[in-house]
Amino acid sequence: MLENLLEERVVDVLIIGGGGFLGQKIARALAASGTLRGETISSLALADLAAPASMDAPFPVSCHAVDIAHRDQVDALFAPKPQAVFHLAAVVSGQAEAEFDVGMSANLTGTMNVLDAARAVGNTPVVVFSSSCAVYGGEIPEQIEDWTALNPQTSYGAQKAAGELFVTDYSRKGFIDGRAPRLPTVTIRPGKANAAASSFMSSIFREPLQGEEAVCPVQPDYALWYASPRVTVANLVKCAEIPADAFGENRGFALPGRVGTIGEMVEAMRTVAGDEPVNRIRWEPDQRILDIVLGWRPHINPQKAFSLGLTADNSFEDNVRYFLEDDIRR
Amino acid sequence: MLENLLEERVVDVLIIGGGGFLGQKIARALAASGTLRGETISSLALADLAAPASMDAPFPVSCHAVDIAHRDQVDALFAPKPQAVFHLAAVVSGQAEAEFDVGMSANLTGTMNVLDAARAVGNTPVVVFSSSCAVYGGEIPEQIEDWTALNPQTSYGAQKAAGELFVTDYSRKGFIDGRAPRLPTVTIRPGKANAAASSFMSSIFREPLQGEEAVCPVQPDYALWYASPRVTVANLVKCAEIPADAFGENRGFALPGRVGTIGEMVEAMRTVAGDEPVNRIRWEPDQRILDIVLGWRPHINPQKAFSLGLTADNSFEDNVRYFLEDDIRR
Repeated sequence: MLENLLEERVVDVLIIGGGGFLGQKIARALAASGTLRGETISSLALADLAAPASMDAPFPVSCHAVDIAHRDQVDALFAPKPQAVFHLAAVVSGQAEAEFDVGMSANLTGTMNVLDAARAVGNTPVVVFSSSCAVYGGEIPEQIEDWTALNPQTSYGAQKAAGELFVTDYSRKGFIDGRAPRLPTVTIRPGKANAAASSFMSSIFREPLQGEEAVCPVQPDYALWYASPRVTVANLVKCAEIPADAFGENRGFALPGRVGTIGEMVEAMRTVAGDEPVNRIRWEPDQRILDIVLGWRPHINPQKAFSLGLTADNSFEDNVRYFLEDDIRR
Repeated sequence: MLENLLEERVVDVLIIGGGGFLGQKIARALAASGTLRGETISSLALADLAAPASMDAPFPVSCHAVDIAHRDQVDALFAPKPQAVFHLAAVVSGQAEAEFDVGMSANLTGTMNVLDAARAVGNTPVVVFSSSCAVYGGEIPEQIEDWTALNPQTSYGAQKAAGELFVTDYSRKGFIDGRAPRLPTVTIRPGKANAAASSFMSSIFREPLQGEEAVCPVQPDYALWYASPRVTVANLVKCAEIPADAFGENRGFALPGRVGTIGEMVEAMRTVAGDEPVNRIRWEPDQRILDIVLGWRPHINPQKAFSLGLTADNSFEDNVRYFLEDDIRR
């Protein structure tokens, strides 16, 4: 038969930042489906500052310790010529603000090293670069459209915005086939609380759902732009699968999300899980956190992403259920 | 007297790209006034790939050959700790598109070297970075406001847009006191025609006013966003003089300009200089140039710049007169 003579189309996947919670969830989603872009996954490489743990998958999984600030290390990672790359590695906003040079090294130099290594491979790989809604801020209208200026008010945001510019330009030049979705606040994020100002946006749900107390530093009427880990992972995988010509002239765009107030989200948790978790939240306004998070922008109209077939959660009740199904400590 | 006991406040100025026509005109403006920011200029350094020629001035002028892609050369340039810096050096749009790595090296690496060297001096110098309206393009509304996305469709535009992001972030961090005005098409530019697609926007006036023929590759109804060299130089000097706190959260902004069609501009030349120069224009549409320049955006509303006291030309008749006064070959 003719089709037996045709070589099976396969895809080698690389996840940079593969040790993080989104990288791990993408890896598990790929292991579950075994395919990407309608092609069989032939290998998966997971890279992070510390080599991630391996996982069961229907394809070989290799694990790599890489500092993306070093071009030679990034080149070595690209030696197997991956056709699809997720670049999720970043120094997060709090650290990029406190340790400016560390943030620039990972988020600007590191991202340019990834783009240049991807270009050098010469196979125009798909590169999904996780940008962030931290690119918005300052003197822009309250309602954010696809054509609203990126006007970041943090070093992390400036570095992500610059990364988007070069993902778009490297794609226009045909060096890579890039996509730079801006992630909403991902909640309910599994794991532990961290030093991020946004940490409470997951911990006030995660900890009470697991029988522990948590502190909410904002008023119930504080509004945020959010998405569940499950929808975010599905959108990131989908970002790798959308045909290049669907992106038009913009490779950077806001992912869909939902606007909700903390009060509405807490009531959603009550609907799914009852009064007990809600009663474990202590309300203690914290001006230091308010000063940061009141500058963030919850009103985003992601028309471009909708036109690309990307999706938002249906309700925060769903997010609570997803956490209970996917991430609660067993 | 008490005031004799006070040290006179002085300013050392550095112009990177000091050999170009804008750098030379800024240098002559500073030599004429002898002051910047209300302070006496104590020295002027002119730097370019080839050392610029020196000029008469009421302060010492030094001339330097510098490749800004090399950090050590940039550091040497900053050794005298200038308090005011004009960074105008760039690989222009045509070359940055044709020779991608040359453009990235000068326009991204070079600009980061300038910002990092300025930061390393430790005196928070004023840095005026010449951005460009080439940062606009693609999927944005026809009318451009101060909060419209920078969505460049050229590598030059992407590099300038990234430079703006870091001028803003380095300023927010207190490393420099940056200003990143986006220049309109500067016309009537002195000198010779070059390979830029915009070259005709000066040459169809400059050559006929000097008795020579010129070719116009677009229709008379083609509209552009422009400013004269005289107003552009005054605005760039003013950009160095505006108090830092007037900029708010945006260091990047469109300079004022005028919208005019080529036909209107040609009639303005007729008003000032009669029929003879107009008759020296040959109208020969050129699709290769049209393909580029029809993507540019003439409708810009520079409210931020107006609020900062920056200005536009009053008429293209003025631009013609300025050329005859300032730049015509003697």
